[in-house]
Amino acid sequence: MRGFIRENFFPFKNKIKVDYLNNILSEDILFSKINYNFAISNISSLSDIRENSIIFLEKELDINKLASKSIHVISSSKENIKYYKSISIVNNLNDAYNKILNYLYFHDDSEKFPDIYNNINGSYISKFSLIDNSCEIGKNCSISRGVQIGKNCIIKNNVVIKNTILGNNVIISDNTSIGTTGFGFDLKKRGSKFLNPQLGIVIIDDDVHIGSSCTIDRAKIDFTYIGKNSMIDNMVHIGHNVIIGDNACIAAQTGISGSVTIGNNVTIGGQVGFAGHIKIGNNVIIAAKSGVTKNLNDNSVVAGFPAIDIKEWKKNIIKQKKNGYQRNSKNITS
Amino acid sequence: MRGFIRENFFPFKNKIKVDYLNNILSEDILFSKINYNFAISNISSLSDIRENSIIFLEKELDINKLASKSIHVISSSKENIKYYKSISIVNNLNDAYNKILNYLYFHDDSEKFPDIYNNINGSYISKFSLIDNSCEIGKNCSISRGVQIGKNCIIKNNVVIKNTILGNNVIISDNTSIGTTGFGFDLKKRGSKFLNPQLGIVIIDDDVHIGSSCTIDRAKIDFTYIGKNSMIDNMVHIGHNVIIGDNACIAAQTGISGSVTIGNNVTIGGQVGFAGHIKIGNNVIIAAKSGVTKNLNDNSVVAGFPAIDIKEWKKNIIKQKKNGYQRNSKNITS
Amino acid sequence: MRGFIRENFFPFKNKIKVDYLNNILSEDILFSKINYNFAISNISSLSDIRENSIIFLEKELDINKLASKSIHVISSSKENIKYYKSISIVNNLNDAYNKILNYLYFHDDSEKFPDIYNNINGSYISKFSLIDNSCEIGKNCSISRGVQIGKNCIIKNNVVIKNTILGNNVIISDNTSIGTTGFGFDLKKRGSKFLNPQLGIVIIDDDVHIGSSCTIDRAKIDFTYIGKNSMIDNMVHIGHNVIIGDNACIAAQTGISGSVTIGNNVTIGGQVGFAGHIKIGNNVIIAAKSGVTKNLNDNSVVAGFPAIDIKEWKKNIIKQKKNGYQRNSKNITS
Repeated sequence: MRGFIRENFFPFKNKIKVDYLNNILSEDILFSKINYNFAISNISSLSDIRENSIIFLEKELDINKLASKSIHVISSSKENIKYYKSISIVNNLNDAYNKILNYLYFHDDSEKFPDIYNNINGSYISKFSLIDNSCEIGKNCSISRGVQIGKNCIIKNNVVIKNTILGNNVIISDNTSIGTTGFGFDLKKRGSKFLNPQLGIVIIDDDVHIGSSCTIDRAKIDFTYIGKNSMIDNMVHIGHNVIIGDNACIAAQTGISGSVTIGNNVTIGGQVGFAGHIKIGNNVIIAAKSGVTKNLNDNSVVAGFPAIDIKEWKKNIIKQKKNGYQRNSKNITS
Repeated sequence: MRGFIRENFFPFKNKIKVDYLNNILSEDILFSKINYNFAISNISSLSDIRENSIIFLEKELDINKLASKSIHVISSSKENIKYYKSISIVNNLNDAYNKILNYLYFHDDSEKFPDIYNNINGSYISKFSLIDNSCEIGKNCSISRGVQIGKNCIIKNNVVIKNTILGNNVIISDNTSIGTTGFGFDLKKRGSKFLNPQLGIVIIDDDVHIGSSCTIDRAKIDFTYIGKNSMIDNMVHIGHNVIIGDNACIAAQTGISGSVTIGNNVTIGGQVGFAGHIKIGNNVIIAAKSGVTKNLNDNSVVAGFPAIDIKEWKKNIIKQKKNGYQRNSKNITS
Repeated sequence: MRGFIRENFFPFKNKIKVDYLNNILSEDILFSKINYNFAISNISSLSDIRENSIIFLEKELDINKLASKSIHVISSSKENIKYYKSISIVNNLNDAYNKILNYLYFHDDSEKFPDIYNNINGSYISKFSLIDNSCEIGKNCSISRGVQIGKNCIIKNNVVIKNTILGNNVIISDNTSIGTTGFGFDLKKRGSKFLNPQLGIVIIDDDVHIGSSCTIDRAKIDFTYIGKNSMIDNMVHIGHNVIIGDNACIAAQTGISGSVTIGNNVTIGGQVGFAGHIKIGNNVIIAAKSGVTKNLNDNSVVAGFPAIDIKEWKKNIIKQKKNGYQRNSKNITS
């Protein structure tokens, strides 16, 4: 599932060759050299280099595997000119990303996303989706272009699924939205027009249960992923590019910020929050209402905000009590 | 409403006599004696013993009222053999629960839940529901088998109601889901296939207001309950088997974990969380963002995480300030 | 947009002259004098005085501009008799508000709200709404009476919009509800019947992005407002009468209580909460999981609960560590 075909989800609005980037970016472009003027057929991230694609690099970075003739680099760092045969240097990488990708692709934050639906019991199901016959789909859902759903899945009512691949035996409960737009933009340039096109997908592996009123955002370029057998409670928010391993258990109202990576067999209480871009190991347990701000090693058990080892957290609570911060015995029994 | 008929919501998939349990459980069964081979017509919990039913007991427990000949006990504790005339001992009680109940009943997490709907303004309303003519139902709702709705209720748009009994004058706001699946499973055995069938309901009493985008999970066997005149704000999550008394006020984004019991006349701020299985007394006030981890006596007023008497909490905040933790006078005015 | 016509959203149920208030309130009325028996055509708040309207005043308050002959004051403070030529004194102002406004206006928490819809792709769109042709509206939405939507807006799927004016280029993501009922009632008189009629609207200005599964409540009398270019993530709750300036960025699962006022260019992390009725200045940054309990001046940067200057908050965290509250080096890496 991981090697998904972007075009299945985001049809091309325009197909161009590399040299046409100069027209799209016009005066924003500072320098350009083109090794091989291929027809751009994809975008790449550092973790998934695709043939005949463009890739956006912010910082100076020498990546050997980009030496292939069918990758064109777009960068705001002039230093990169020396590493790549085919490169455009731009003023503002974020603006260039937005301009190019809004020119190339349709997505659901741009005008007139092309799709055709069948209406089955109030559920609008794209003719360009692929849903196994064994699945059950409730009322008033919307399943868009490119979505793939494996065997024996149960999609309940008022569920929105777009830009998503579901494995087998997945349950998605009522009023949940999957494959929605990641919250990606330059903080210095706000407004709906400056949203970074989110052209990745969501992949949910076999035997996952997703509760009601959850939101799972699709990735910017690659995929947001939830591993096998994971159990997600109600009102859980999962940001773009989050990777969650197998056998996760995540209680209600927890929110996972963009690009967090979580190992296997984690247990996360309710109302937990995560800072963006951190890494959580395997077999980690995170108590309810924690705010996790740092990476966590395998087998960590943490609580509090900022989240610390749960034994230390408990000691601290006891210490606060000794210092005059006392449970009122009239109020609290257990 | 409390003596609900389970079959109205969860139709039987198979009707069996007690001795057929041996076939369902096969090698998982360690010992079995059957006093009276009745046709199983229900399941019981300790708080609601029903005729001709099965009941699941984890620990050693001698309950006189189960001596009735029409209850068959299923237990993982061999000690219980001595108390009951009709009992099966199993390896793993959770597995036995799942196997038996998935064999007996249809529910919305199993394949092909049987229901027939009328479509009225995009709302799919089960022919097996009972809705008073005085009610108003918005667009794109789904109201499933067994649901009962009393007089003068207002159900707004995109609302999902299943496995629920509503009293009179209840308002349910947009995009809310009621009667959804409780987050119940064995933490050691994760995956959508191992969800414990949730075969209870939600009961919402007269004159309750439920806000938008709330989720209220049905009970495992009995009912989740919200008492009269209760006011629930938006995005509140109420877990399975929660009991809330009359006149509750619960502000937005609060989450109540499974099996919490709350008294009458409570006032709960926004973004509060509760540990599972605790008891909150009458007339309790809980400040916003509290994390309630212990039982609370009547008339408690608490704040913080873990929640403590609000006066102690305030003292502690002042103390932290004295210790160098200071409000920046440039930043904060009030 | 701010001078909206209430009647477009909330049609009159009954049109009365001032002297008919005595019949509606009957024994609840303690004193009444009427200067000019005009036909009531609106309600006013202190910040928006409208012609031929009634206004509710709780406390003693002398407002010159109400001396106009076409405003009738309703108050629970007898002291106000001396200031106004046209006034009714009532026992309980909240009850009077409810009785009068439920008599005068239809709203979505009262019986039989009058509206007529067209069904376009499962979306029910009021014939009394005004939507620019350039907009795109997804599946299974509900757009009610009075709603105005500007140019090039994208309304995704299962969205509920009522009592709302949207500017141009606004994006509203899946399963979001806008213009829903504010959580307004007298804490001493709970129950769905005693909800204060919420007769204001939501105004969302140009180029705003609203994520999935958000709830934005309409104001009681005036409007809830979100300024230009604001970016709102998923599962954000915005209470009634909240005013948010231009260029806000608000991360997922944050909740803003009623009547909070927020300046321009604020950046708010995820899972933040705000006490009601506070004022937040311009260019404020609020860290994730903060609980903001006080006004914040321009350029504040805060964290924690209660939220304090972020440098103080960080010092305090370090201090707690020194006092024995220590990160477990085995657990946490960064």
